[in-house]
Amino acid sequence: MIFASDNWAGAHPAIGEALARHAGGFAAAYGTSDLDRKIEERFNTLFEREVAVFFVGTGTAANSLALASVNRPGGVSFCHSEAHVIEDECGAPEFFTNGARLVPIDGAAGRMDTDALEAEVARFAPGVVHTGQPMAITMTQPTEVGTVYAPEDIERIAGIAKRYGLPLHMDGARFANALVHLGLSPAEMTWKRGVDIVSFGGTKNGCWCAEALVFMNPEMARDVPFIRKRAAQLFSKSRFVAAQFDAYFEDDLWLDLARHSNAMADRLRAGIAASDHARLGWETQTNELFPIIEKARVDSLRTAGAVVMDWMPPRAVRSEIGEDEMMARMVTSFASSEGDVDRLLESLG
Amino acid sequence: MIFASDNWAGAHPAIGEALARHAGGFAAAYGTSDLDRKIEERFNTLFEREVAVFFVGTGTAANSLALASVNRPGGVSFCHSEAHVIEDECGAPEFFTNGARLVPIDGAAGRMDTDALEAEVARFAPGVVHTGQPMAITMTQPTEVGTVYAPEDIERIAGIAKRYGLPLHMDGARFANALVHLGLSPAEMTWKRGVDIVSFGGTKNGCWCAEALVFMNPEMARDVPFIRKRAAQLFSKSRFVAAQFDAYFEDDLWLDLARHSNAMADRLRAGIAASDHARLGWETQTNELFPIIEKARVDSLRTAGAVVMDWMPPRAVRSEIGEDEMMARMVTSFASSEGDVDRLLESLG
Amino acid sequence: MIFASDNWAGAHPAIGEALARHAGGFAAAYGTSDLDRKIEERFNTLFEREVAVFFVGTGTAANSLALASVNRPGGVSFCHSEAHVIEDECGAPEFFTNGARLVPIDGAAGRMDTDALEAEVARFAPGVVHTGQPMAITMTQPTEVGTVYAPEDIERIAGIAKRYGLPLHMDGARFANALVHLGLSPAEMTWKRGVDIVSFGGTKNGCWCAEALVFMNPEMARDVPFIRKRAAQLFSKSRFVAAQFDAYFEDDLWLDLARHSNAMADRLRAGIAASDHARLGWETQTNELFPIIEKARVDSLRTAGAVVMDWMPPRAVRSEIGEDEMMARMVTSFASSEGDVDRLLESLG
Amino acid sequence: MIFASDNWAGAHPAIGEALARHAGGFAAAYGTSDLDRKIEERFNTLFEREVAVFFVGTGTAANSLALASVNRPGGVSFCHSEAHVIEDECGAPEFFTNGARLVPIDGAAGRMDTDALEAEVARFAPGVVHTGQPMAITMTQPTEVGTVYAPEDIERIAGIAKRYGLPLHMDGARFANALVHLGLSPAEMTWKRGVDIVSFGGTKNGCWCAEALVFMNPEMARDVPFIRKRAAQLFSKSRFVAAQFDAYFEDDLWLDLARHSNAMADRLRAGIAASDHARLGWETQTNELFPIIEKARVDSLRTAGAVVMDWMPPRAVRSEIGEDEMMARMVTSFASSEGDVDRLLESLG
Repeated sequence: MIFASDNWAGAHPAIGEALARHAGGFAAAYGTSDLDRKIEERFNTLFEREVAVFFVGTGTAANSLALASVNRPGGVSFCHSEAHVIEDECGAPEFFTNGARLVPIDGAAGRMDTDALEAEVARFAPGVVHTGQPMAITMTQPTEVGTVYAPEDIERIAGIAKRYGLPLHMDGARFANALVHLGLSPAEMTWKRGVDIVSFGGTKNGCWCAEALVFMNPEMARDVPFIRKRAAQLFSKSRFVAAQFDAYFEDDLWLDLARHSNAMADRLRAGIAASDHARLGWETQTNELFPIIEKARVDSLRTAGAVVMDWMPPRAVRSEIGEDEMMARMVTSFASSEGDVDRLLESLG
Repeated sequence: MIFASDNWAGAHPAIGEALARHAGGFAAAYGTSDLDRKIEERFNTLFEREVAVFFVGTGTAANSLALASVNRPGGVSFCHSEAHVIEDECGAPEFFTNGARLVPIDGAAGRMDTDALEAEVARFAPGVVHTGQPMAITMTQPTEVGTVYAPEDIERIAGIAKRYGLPLHMDGARFANALVHLGLSPAEMTWKRGVDIVSFGGTKNGCWCAEALVFMNPEMARDVPFIRKRAAQLFSKSRFVAAQFDAYFEDDLWLDLARHSNAMADRLRAGIAASDHARLGWETQTNELFPIIEKARVDSLRTAGAVVMDWMPPRAVRSEIGEDEMMARMVTSFASSEGDVDRLLESLG
Repeated sequence: MIFASDNWAGAHPAIGEALARHAGGFAAAYGTSDLDRKIEERFNTLFEREVAVFFVGTGTAANSLALASVNRPGGVSFCHSEAHVIEDECGAPEFFTNGARLVPIDGAAGRMDTDALEAEVARFAPGVVHTGQPMAITMTQPTEVGTVYAPEDIERIAGIAKRYGLPLHMDGARFANALVHLGLSPAEMTWKRGVDIVSFGGTKNGCWCAEALVFMNPEMARDVPFIRKRAAQLFSKSRFVAAQFDAYFEDDLWLDLARHSNAMADRLRAGIAASDHARLGWETQTNELFPIIEKARVDSLRTAGAVVMDWMPPRAVRSEIGEDEMMARMVTSFASSEGDVDRLLESLG
Repeated sequence: MIFASDNWAGAHPAIGEALARHAGGFAAAYGTSDLDRKIEERFNTLFEREVAVFFVGTGTAANSLALASVNRPGGVSFCHSEAHVIEDECGAPEFFTNGARLVPIDGAAGRMDTDALEAEVARFAPGVVHTGQPMAITMTQPTEVGTVYAPEDIERIAGIAKRYGLPLHMDGARFANALVHLGLSPAEMTWKRGVDIVSFGGTKNGCWCAEALVFMNPEMARDVPFIRKRAAQLFSKSRFVAAQFDAYFEDDLWLDLARHSNAMADRLRAGIAASDHARLGWETQTNELFPIIEKARVDSLRTAGAVVMDWMPPRAVRSEIGEDEMMARMVTSFASSEGDVDRLLESLG
């Protein structure tokens, strides 16, 4: 009954087999092997255009290098106030941009309020050096709190980005989970809505270490080979990342895994909604949920062997939580089973 | 006949099996799993003392974070003029130290000349802000050009480090190859000679991605958890790096692989020495050799399917190379076979 | 009728004369002259303890190097959401700390709400790498919006700093204006209340370029000589900054200038309060005021030759401003005259 | 008898008077005053084209921001091995470029050997991420050791820069001293020979703090306003730097001061050449000389009140210096007098 995080899961067997299959023989290093090339082609197909793809080791690296690639002196990026980039990456985005600032934008259920976003972007008058200058908008899809931006939400944000001449980055650490929920193609969820750069995550969805930084317009990525190498993110045996993606995309495995993960979350959500001892903090659409639970019941759950995380409730929700309650985070993954879900719900009562 | 680099090899079967074995089930993320703990313990045993160990994704990361962990404003580190840190890491050490400088020290066959080193360190008068301040010495073992520092060489460098109050870092991207050549224990090749920090590489010796930053004195590493996370080098599914090291150390696999690799290089060296069309640029002791070869023969080799790299000869050797000759680099690995070595030598004639 | 900013004023005649007096002859460069030494001693007397003093060229430099001197990887500092460091320095504090973050704390009238401050600091659990780690609190005295922290306010903030082991920095770009308002000594407004580092500004109060970074505990400043030099802030002809401070402190000129400046602001405040066309956005205590004025009257003022700045009203005040009104900023200085004040008030009606 | 450095001199009376003249009244801050504008125009006239000019506080700032303005990830700049940027700025150029490397180029008498320069630049193959990428050439005119590049030397270096697509920066901390020696106009010594960016120094030649960063092509400077502000180098009372330049250029004062300074050095050179106890380490053309002197005589000089600096002799000269001799540096300035020169020479014997 592990619902701590999707990165507590291991690797899907198909990923493991691909790694084993590609372990033998020799291959050109540093991302120049045939297999690397093949996967780059695969990304072109996936996104229905020629993109520039860079494998990196972690989601933090993908996000940080995305911002580093559009860096400006005195640069300011805009993200949701609960976004991973600003809350959970130990200042890596600021470090890799040599101090470009992240400005937090509030908004219900993890989605940036577009009025607040535009108001904040508009504060920066062109050429005024004191305030610095806007350099990017970065959104998380699905959001840090399990919700999803609808296609028209993305368009609205992209509209602001375009109006102010800013590139739009999408942190897709759980890209597949949003994609299958929305029933969109990768192109439809990204560049067709105005997204310029994607952190494309495979790790949380069944790979062990497969993250890619994808530029919709390869021209924007001209310096990225140097940015990545200088960031110590160019793997010598890069083929092993490629091998993971090879299996990940084969027969749409990645979509199946995300569907399974979302379905397990649906089952959990339904159970929570029906429980007398818990309720959902807000509606989520993907593989994360944030129930408010009686503290005593959380103890029981844990005694029964469940692993769930405490979660600091966002300000807007704080007042709804009783003295004897707390907020938890539950995350499902490709490795979650119906049995585990049901056992957890049973323990919850 | 691939002698391009040891990172063109894949992963040893035992490494692959370990990855598969640990792929199932759930494990705490971000380096906190039981397996992570076990491997940290293993490093303590290996180094015969309590050390602080940090897994990272690349050798460049290990070297850069080693220097970042001892960073000082206006800091200057000293390394061999052909060292990987200064020649092949795209400025990553400077980037992660926010501009600390690397001062190149010459020396025959890849080893820093200790007189030159001390003279250079001594140029910095304490408290003189204009010149900056020394912050570390970093040596490569084995060196970038296949040679090895003898224990007394290490002691001599460590003596200078101690005299000037500087930490001594060892870039051990091919640590095992030096170790088995010298017949020393890890402790004997490091802290017993005065080394403070080691970049401990497993990738080139049969892992696919297993690098560790090891501090002999855990006190020195107090800020490193933050330094690593901010550097985007903390893997969520860290257990997979741990799993590789688990297999790597099991039954001294790592030493066997390094011995094999060195032995293949010995065989190659003997063949080169006996050839009428090639000779060794200098004596090497590990799995790299740098032969001077007739250009026509290099063409033949390549036609026969051999992959060897061109190598820009160091200044001291340049004059010994004839118009119709060139310098190549050949690297053996755990995956090199006697057959391949013999076939290459045969093609060479 | 220039009330645009106190840095639109020139230099007080006494400052100019000191510069002229010290222009002849030779003096040791880079802050080592007798005059530099004398002023350093003067700071010791001023603060009633041995302090470490570093001249720099701008207030932005003083603030940025203060934070750089206590920098930590993944570091987070806390400041008011309208503070100069976060709003007006083009990311310099983040740049000089290589990406340490500034977390904005709200609070009425430019003062950090201490509950909000403590809540925000408390969010960072020791050793949790994801969130980063607290590294400093920085407060502005007087605040960016003309108000002053009372001694007990400073103590309260210092108490939080102490509780969490954080250094407390005071941005004193207008240090003297707060000091004379409170009737405190420099020691009483700083280290006796728990302040560790002060950006001590002279420029806005009648110097042309005299800023000092003052550490109450010289031990904290050990690396600052290198930090300053590397930041390109070590003047070769440093004696000219020293000469300004020499005149600035002579016969308490600095306090007289600040008293004059505050008095002119008092006169302006009284006039605004009595006007039918304007009112104060909030009470201020020093040489800045933020009146809400009928737009038509601002036009008249400007036509009459007054220079005042538009000011984006803080969120809390925004709703109180009518459609036909706007917020302006007016700043007095040592160079403001009663005549100018009265003429402005007359134009305002 | 102060020949320690030209920055031990104070300010020329005309500079002081200009500062006094402009101290009164109000002027727009942050480089936007009429006087700032006037001086910018003056630079256009001086360089016979529209240039972009940025005042900064120190020569180190000018050099560092010049490189920052052409920064690239993994960037490598080329400078003489004894250049100020690499030897005397505490890593500021590396800091402001976030780690771009300076590669030292040898060459007699402080001038880069152009063959060595081109060989070093040519080592970087386009697109090879491991080595990093060339980003600039920076030359010092006059050089760090008192010599001057002839116009055809500048052209040769500019030719290399052009061939490899690199901007050429000139560190002109003593720009005027080279200019009057060569009898060239500013345009002739810079862009007409292929120089793109100039650190234009006034401080060493009679100002107290007047340095400018000049871009021959304003397009190259688009981001520099932000780069400068973020570097804490935008003075609020910028008019005081402008005022210094105003007097500096008036009636060609700057050229007169440089001519005087050079003439005093000529007189010193002639005296040294005629002495039995000293000789010149190499021929210099401007206001610095590097005599080899009997140690006993240096003691006498100093007893007599002379201030001259010890100088670590460059490698090429070291063998020519006897056991009982040492190398000193003597620098003249606008403030040096014939009397002082003659007295020093008399003491030398």
